[in-house]
Amino acid sequence: MISAIDDLIEMALREDIGTGDITTETTIPENVMTRAVILSKDDGIIAGLDIACKVFHRIDDGIRFEKLVSDGDEISKGQNLAIIKGKARSLLTAERTVLNFLQRLSGIATITSKYVNAVSGYHVKIVDTRKTTPGLRMPEKYAVRVGGGHNHRFGLYDAVLIKDNHIAVAGSIIRAVSSARERVPHTMKIEVETKTLGEVLEAIESKADIIMLDNMNLEMMSQAVKMINGSAFVEASGGIKLDNVASVAQTGVDLISVGALTHSATSLDISMEIEL
Amino acid sequence: MISAIDDLIEMALREDIGTGDITTETTIPENVMTRAVILSKDDGIIAGLDIACKVFHRIDDGIRFEKLVSDGDEISKGQNLAIIKGKARSLLTAERTVLNFLQRLSGIATITSKYVNAVSGYHVKIVDTRKTTPGLRMPEKYAVRVGGGHNHRFGLYDAVLIKDNHIAVAGSIIRAVSSARERVPHTMKIEVETKTLGEVLEAIESKADIIMLDNMNLEMMSQAVKMINGSAFVEASGGIKLDNVASVAQTGVDLISVGALTHSATSLDISMEIEL
Amino acid sequence: MISAIDDLIEMALREDIGTGDITTETTIPENVMTRAVILSKDDGIIAGLDIACKVFHRIDDGIRFEKLVSDGDEISKGQNLAIIKGKARSLLTAERTVLNFLQRLSGIATITSKYVNAVSGYHVKIVDTRKTTPGLRMPEKYAVRVGGGHNHRFGLYDAVLIKDNHIAVAGSIIRAVSSARERVPHTMKIEVETKTLGEVLEAIESKADIIMLDNMNLEMMSQAVKMINGSAFVEASGGIKLDNVASVAQTGVDLISVGALTHSATSLDISMEIEL
Amino acid sequence: MISAIDDLIEMALREDIGTGDITTETTIPENVMTRAVILSKDDGIIAGLDIACKVFHRIDDGIRFEKLVSDGDEISKGQNLAIIKGKARSLLTAERTVLNFLQRLSGIATITSKYVNAVSGYHVKIVDTRKTTPGLRMPEKYAVRVGGGHNHRFGLYDAVLIKDNHIAVAGSIIRAVSSARERVPHTMKIEVETKTLGEVLEAIESKADIIMLDNMNLEMMSQAVKMINGSAFVEASGGIKLDNVASVAQTGVDLISVGALTHSATSLDISMEIEL
Amino acid sequence: MISAIDDLIEMALREDIGTGDITTETTIPENVMTRAVILSKDDGIIAGLDIACKVFHRIDDGIRFEKLVSDGDEISKGQNLAIIKGKARSLLTAERTVLNFLQRLSGIATITSKYVNAVSGYHVKIVDTRKTTPGLRMPEKYAVRVGGGHNHRFGLYDAVLIKDNHIAVAGSIIRAVSSARERVPHTMKIEVETKTLGEVLEAIESKADIIMLDNMNLEMMSQAVKMINGSAFVEASGGIKLDNVASVAQTGVDLISVGALTHSATSLDISMEIEL
Amino acid sequence: MISAIDDLIEMALREDIGTGDITTETTIPENVMTRAVILSKDDGIIAGLDIACKVFHRIDDGIRFEKLVSDGDEISKGQNLAIIKGKARSLLTAERTVLNFLQRLSGIATITSKYVNAVSGYHVKIVDTRKTTPGLRMPEKYAVRVGGGHNHRFGLYDAVLIKDNHIAVAGSIIRAVSSARERVPHTMKIEVETKTLGEVLEAIESKADIIMLDNMNLEMMSQAVKMINGSAFVEASGGIKLDNVASVAQTGVDLISVGALTHSATSLDISMEIEL
Repeated sequence: MISAIDDLIEMALREDIGTGDITTETTIPENVMTRAVILSKDDGIIAGLDIACKVFHRIDDGIRFEKLVSDGDEISKGQNLAIIKGKARSLLTAERTVLNFLQRLSGIATITSKYVNAVSGYHVKIVDTRKTTPGLRMPEKYAVRVGGGHNHRFGLYDAVLIKDNHIAVAGSIIRAVSSARERVPHTMKIEVETKTLGEVLEAIESKADIIMLDNMNLEMMSQAVKMINGSAFVEASGGIKLDNVASVAQTGVDLISVGALTHSATSLDISMEIEL
Repeated sequence: MISAIDDLIEMALREDIGTGDITTETTIPENVMTRAVILSKDDGIIAGLDIACKVFHRIDDGIRFEKLVSDGDEISKGQNLAIIKGKARSLLTAERTVLNFLQRLSGIATITSKYVNAVSGYHVKIVDTRKTTPGLRMPEKYAVRVGGGHNHRFGLYDAVLIKDNHIAVAGSIIRAVSSARERVPHTMKIEVETKTLGEVLEAIESKADIIMLDNMNLEMMSQAVKMINGSAFVEASGGIKLDNVASVAQTGVDLISVGALTHSATSLDISMEIEL
Repeated sequence: MISAIDDLIEMALREDIGTGDITTETTIPENVMTRAVILSKDDGIIAGLDIACKVFHRIDDGIRFEKLVSDGDEISKGQNLAIIKGKARSLLTAERTVLNFLQRLSGIATITSKYVNAVSGYHVKIVDTRKTTPGLRMPEKYAVRVGGGHNHRFGLYDAVLIKDNHIAVAGSIIRAVSSARERVPHTMKIEVETKTLGEVLEAIESKADIIMLDNMNLEMMSQAVKMINGSAFVEASGGIKLDNVASVAQTGVDLISVGALTHSATSLDISMEIEL
Repeated sequence: MISAIDDLIEMALREDIGTGDITTETTIPENVMTRAVILSKDDGIIAGLDIACKVFHRIDDGIRFEKLVSDGDEISKGQNLAIIKGKARSLLTAERTVLNFLQRLSGIATITSKYVNAVSGYHVKIVDTRKTTPGLRMPEKYAVRVGGGHNHRFGLYDAVLIKDNHIAVAGSIIRAVSSARERVPHTMKIEVETKTLGEVLEAIESKADIIMLDNMNLEMMSQAVKMINGSAFVEASGGIKLDNVASVAQTGVDLISVGALTHSATSLDISMEIEL
Repeated sequence: MISAIDDLIEMALREDIGTGDITTETTIPENVMTRAVILSKDDGIIAGLDIACKVFHRIDDGIRFEKLVSDGDEISKGQNLAIIKGKARSLLTAERTVLNFLQRLSGIATITSKYVNAVSGYHVKIVDTRKTTPGLRMPEKYAVRVGGGHNHRFGLYDAVLIKDNHIAVAGSIIRAVSSARERVPHTMKIEVETKTLGEVLEAIESKADIIMLDNMNLEMMSQAVKMINGSAFVEASGGIKLDNVASVAQTGVDLISVGALTHSATSLDISMEIEL
Repeated sequence: MISAIDDLIEMALREDIGTGDITTETTIPENVMTRAVILSKDDGIIAGLDIACKVFHRIDDGIRFEKLVSDGDEISKGQNLAIIKGKARSLLTAERTVLNFLQRLSGIATITSKYVNAVSGYHVKIVDTRKTTPGLRMPEKYAVRVGGGHNHRFGLYDAVLIKDNHIAVAGSIIRAVSSARERVPHTMKIEVETKTLGEVLEAIESKADIIMLDNMNLEMMSQAVKMINGSAFVEASGGIKLDNVASVAQTGVDLISVGALTHSATSLDISMEIEL
């Protein structure tokens, strides 16, 4: 399958291996075969096993990779996640890159899952943002889905999101929306960012498909939801944390976008142990 | 200058822009010029301003980028970091990618700086690891230096680091080191990982250039330092956190490696405000 | 600006120039300067002048390119379109690639414009399809816009278009739409292809954002438009030609998609004359 | 085999699939297998089946592709051309790109074949030009061969073709030819463009290997052929259409070059039907 | 200008610089400006100055490069070839790659020039072969021209050269030539390799454009030249050295191809001296 | 395995094959199978067989390649090195590129082996330099190892080598070394170039890990070795030839670097014979 992840894997392996894994090449004979286990040293949600498998195969397609769990599974400290068999050299050379992918993506899935659980009683979706690590947009958005979240637009190209700056130049929300509506493919939705209830009103009038409530307090959000009353999707955004996300959900918004899912996720501790 | 960062910037911009910034193209007239400010919403250490400048120029080399601070400076909440002038379209299209770089790299510089400060009285270096984000090895290691830390090896190709698995196959530390010594360029140092004082003894005998004390307690580390007695560099590694790093420094090790500098740094909050 | 067109220009120049323009290098002295005119030998709509300029500059950024008309202008046989000044060698080497772009894109803009004019009295948009030349999706869709048409989705990634095959597997239109709705970003619209009025009914019920009437006759289309009654966008598709497009418009559909805009456009005759 | 077609296929798939076939991924379960038929909806000459196969395999090398006809075969409306078996997702994702290649290349083979048939009684070759779609030079020239035509030079690098502009700078045909002869590899032929009988005379004297008669009328061409009398290959070029190509052939020229084979070919209608 | 040399320069710089010139970065302050001289430590023919300039500019386009001689000039030990001004860091980082290009290309130009001089009284051309360093075909063939030699075909794509193996499969020289003649573009010449006078006769009969005399002794070559008598170009090939090349020229062949020009050229000694 | 050699093979094949091997395609039927032998026409050390195998497989992975010797083996004139079976077309198309790699790498291994043998009685290593062919650094350094030599640093990135220019700017050897020591990873060694015994003294004091004696005479070298007395590695460099290398070894240096291993190696004569 054509996929940008292959380019990223190539880039990651090249930056780590460079002109060769000098340690492995000078201490491990070429034909030693081995078996290794990938195991978790944290509790969380696993994400990235198929990418891990691709990394191993990019190094050596003779490696056998057997998953013991699947992306999205809850894993706990000490649990084995996969068994790998192949040349000791290949496993050792791939180890760090494999773990770097698994640790970061599982970190994102884990934090996402916490947000999703925090709003489990509400009819609301947790969505990500474009605040992703440069070059890792697609795998990070994948990890959000694995964690139970949903994706906002993938980039600047697949949806219209009119922010305050666009509005200021265009003159008004209505003008900006109609200028966009006229020219974008009919298949694309238009979202507008609002900061005040006055802007919400204008956004409703503009017939935007989605209205973002940016950094509003809970009361304003509740009012905005009532004003919009189903005529557009409503997205809450800005300053949302694990301890206030449920209150935001309670205002009746359809979507809550959380930048921290990707920009402030920390690694899940995962390691590989070789059994020689 | 030839630099892998250009490939990463290209990749990051392509994943965000794809076939075009549809919002900006349909709401902002082509020739509107503007001025914007990059400002911090957190306290920390700034890193990545030159990369930010490169990102803007990759989009539009007519953009003027004026730094108000330099990489490594301590910045505080509300402080302006740079002023940018150019086409409104170009600024808006570049915004997110620029901030994604700045936020992540400044996050790394900031946490590094905390570790460095925590051991400021000791003759010890805080160094990073290979636990970096796939594809971002070089900029992340740069951010560590900006934060006052030092770099461990860049990848598998520029130094020998013999770990337990290598030792197990080779048969002993002494064999592994001598096998490597014989074959690697004379310009490369050899580091050996040890977990017990017995292994430390063997490492000393093997004439390794650097001895890593992996996951030892403070007492063992102190003893190891005495045994090594200057015959090799000593690196402490494993389980080091902000609250125990000073105690580790006190054992007299030369280097303390901290994976969290890169695998668990969270973003520094930085934003761009356009003044139309 | 980051743009896929640069890759295409590179590819086009490399395939034409290969290891060098042997004729020019062996018959034209290196420093001869010249002036050339690009002129039309047909009536039509011009498209691709900025791309032409980019091609010249990729060969030699010392070339001066002055447009006498702009993309979208109606041009007539014998009319000068641009004046180019620079090294004779550079102009001659770039000539064919420049003209190949201009001729194809202007051919598309010209045919598009004929369709747009044919429905000028109706509230309907002429849109393109994904039946574009491999590798030329974006410039060809640009030429459609230049000719007064609009773009359908850019590719498989930026909108959902559920066709008969998808429906057959999913079991029903309603199931297919709800399966997609649940999982795609909230920013994306969902379009469904229908071939019968029964399917139109089901599509309405599924709350699809856009309903495509595929290869229906005029009467069926009129009925479908009435049934849908504004609850979704309506797109007519299949078998549409210049001589029946007005009748299709008369049925009240919102959009008419025409594959021939791109898959069967013929070149507009454009040439370059050098004045030595 | 090393081949530029692989780059083009990659580019074509990337522009269509981008970040993923969102419709297929959200409506078709991953493991559904299916069988599809590629069939013609037009009469013509088929070209591009091996490229179609490569496109399928680039998406999923588990796809089985069975040709029912071969490139160059005459096909008729309703005829099945190939049977494909594999994952439904893979087939649906590849469909449009496969058809875009087949339709364009078969369109070129079909129009070429008409020109070739029109001169079937004469000892003359129909050849293409460099007026190809940017990026598609090689597959389009392949389609010309499939249609029974022959190729002119592939690009600026593999033969010398001295045109009026080159002559004007060099001072005369004789000077231009001798300047080129002296410097190009001895393996390359030299062709000269002529517009008058006087230029033909000069071209003969210059010992050009090939003489092109550009935009001459039939009588001039006949005379030129007599003057050249076998001392060089003779190519007719300019303003040649299906209805006058036989008359041109009658003048005794060796080659007739036709830009329309590639710059104005329209698609042959070919589709894929999935049998679930 | 589009040119494969840019890719090679990129590749050469990346393999040398990798993640950075660690010595220069840690010992030379960023803003020290300097002046350097490129000078020869050998007698010979210089080639590659424009490539040297490109390498410097790829590192830092602020570098000023002033040529004191031109490609093809005879240079002598101790002679200054160019003056370079710019940042000390940039000059030091580029130094080795610049010299590696200059040394190899000048080595080729120098040896070529010796062969050319050795046959200076004869009407014969010294030509190269495809025995070039992988990846350096074009610059090495350029260096041959700089040294006064001529180029044989550039690769497998731009001329037909039928060797013994092709003949063996085709059945005879006549069949092989006519099979190729029928199918290659009319712009391409056909060369045939012969090892005996019988094969020469057959090659003449086949109307090959060029006949190669492979590893024949002087007497056979003289006879072959007489037999061919101007009906085709004649190329001598195989076992030609500086001390027998004049005798080969004396046989009356048109071309002498010499693999050693590229496969066994040694470097000309050239160095860079920085004047701080 | 991820390896830069794949990029080089791709580049080499593309430059040779370009748009296709026109001779083979027009004279050899597609399905003829054949067997070929690679044989040596010189005595020497073979290097590059695995690369040769990769080249064949890049053209056609159906080719079977059987090695009769291994890299590093001594081979003699007339000896068969490998047997290849597969399509005649594939073998003929790959032939030249395969041989160009084998000839150059074996040439390097052979000359290296001569230097290594010349110092066989001494405890000294023959090492290469960065004077390699642009783009071929890694395969050329590999060939040096195959010939029994050792590698100096791979590039500017993996070790510090402070030369006279760096020293001049830094002010002194001691300053340059301490400036580097402070900033480079602790895993990297630092080498200093010295031209006089005074500089050697300073280098010893600076605690450089390696001291290079540049262009010193034998007596100076002997003295330097005594002064250094094991406190650093000692490398002799400059003006070393086959006939004086043993004398240099006798001075007691640890390493002798020889630029000629790569910059002036000539090809070993190797050819392929097809048995149809």
